[in-house]
Amino acid sequence: MVAQALSIEDRLAINDLFIRYATSMDNGDVEGVVGCYTEDAVLLGSATGDHRGHQAIRAFATRYANFHASGAQLRHFITNIIVTPEEGGAKVTAYLLTGYTQDGQHERLRPGHYICHVVKTEGEWLFKSRFVAQDSPMGLNVK
Amino acid sequence: MVAQALSIEDRLAINDLFIRYATSMDNGDVEGVVGCYTEDAVLLGSATGDHRGHQAIRAFATRYANFHASGAQLRHFITNIIVTPEEGGAKVTAYLLTGYTQDGQHERLRPGHYICHVVKTEGEWLFKSRFVAQDSPMGLNVK
Amino acid sequence: MVAQALSIEDRLAINDLFIRYATSMDNGDVEGVVGCYTEDAVLLGSATGDHRGHQAIRAFATRYANFHASGAQLRHFITNIIVTPEEGGAKVTAYLLTGYTQDGQHERLRPGHYICHVVKTEGEWLFKSRFVAQDSPMGLNVK
Repeated sequence: MVAQALSIEDRLAINDLFIRYATSMDNGDVEGVVGCYTEDAVLLGSATGDHRGHQAIRAFATRYANFHASGAQLRHFITNIIVTPEEGGAKVTAYLLTGYTQDGQHERLRPGHYICHVVKTEGEWLFKSRFVAQDSPMGLNVK
Repeated sequence: MVAQALSIEDRLAINDLFIRYATSMDNGDVEGVVGCYTEDAVLLGSATGDHRGHQAIRAFATRYANFHASGAQLRHFITNIIVTPEEGGAKVTAYLLTGYTQDGQHERLRPGHYICHVVKTEGEWLFKSRFVAQDSPMGLNVK
Repeated sequence: MVAQALSIEDRLAINDLFIRYATSMDNGDVEGVVGCYTEDAVLLGSATGDHRGHQAIRAFATRYANFHASGAQLRHFITNIIVTPEEGGAKVTAYLLTGYTQDGQHERLRPGHYICHVVKTEGEWLFKSRFVAQDSPMGLNVK
């Protein structure tokens, strides 16, 4: 099997997946986050830690939901999305700016990037793997 | 009447509406701003104040045009646009980063988000309502 | 000859050109940068200096590749892309946020904007001219 060109609908759906994921994280929507991943997906990164499968990713997302429930507003600004077809799906890279507001104070925005692999499962595009790298560490105290 | 799926052309046109609005605000283009709204539109927000109808929105946009004319450069960076079809049009949410440069000094960027409702009027997508929320206040001194 | 409406495929390809250019610059990919321009293209800007043709643009991109090779990570966040068809191609404007991380320190992000003209050459969209303006100077020490 080789990489196939993606339709415009597929490209927009992959774009939407990225944005839906970011806003679900920021809004503390745990199942919204989990639902962006395949059952066997992996989430990797120095800031996020490594998580494999829905159960581990749910625990990860729950920590951010608690952060949100405490009154903090995290924001993932997603730009520079590049979608490259590959065998079985697509490789997707993007830039992120991450910052949060807590107790009325806005923390400085931090840049980083994503390297993801997405697959179409039952008509829906999902993350099979997601790697997050930040250019400099951010002192986000999520427990 | 129920929500209908949007064509790709509609989605791009709604995206363009958001960007055209942001750049019109930043460039001090008063009629460009007003022309993004339906006649009976409402603009709501703690930073912007509440404005109903073209005349009120024109007065609002004029204050920003004066800010621009004074040599200040405001920037609304728009990301994370999500378009959800709804009865009669679409709900659209987006993230913004707002900052400005004045007298050679660039003020720190502030995050926030939009919740908007858009409708297609005579073939053109326009804002029927626009709600702006900033995560932390920005000391923009627009008169 | 007059401006012709652009297909959705053309719009996405122009969008991709912008993103590919930004990430090539940030990753120190010299030929990736050069390949985004027509042979006779011009790059203009107070921060970038003026450069005409592939050879001059290659020298420009090489300085940024050296910056990257030294361990610094530059980031161009691209938003607010507006594509306007014009005779022979399209005018494209966009916003940028630029910042970099060096020795673990992230420098404050700086806003600016682009005014570009793009043409379709042998089926591929390329920059014929590219003007970059920053709202306030950034002390990037690229040699």
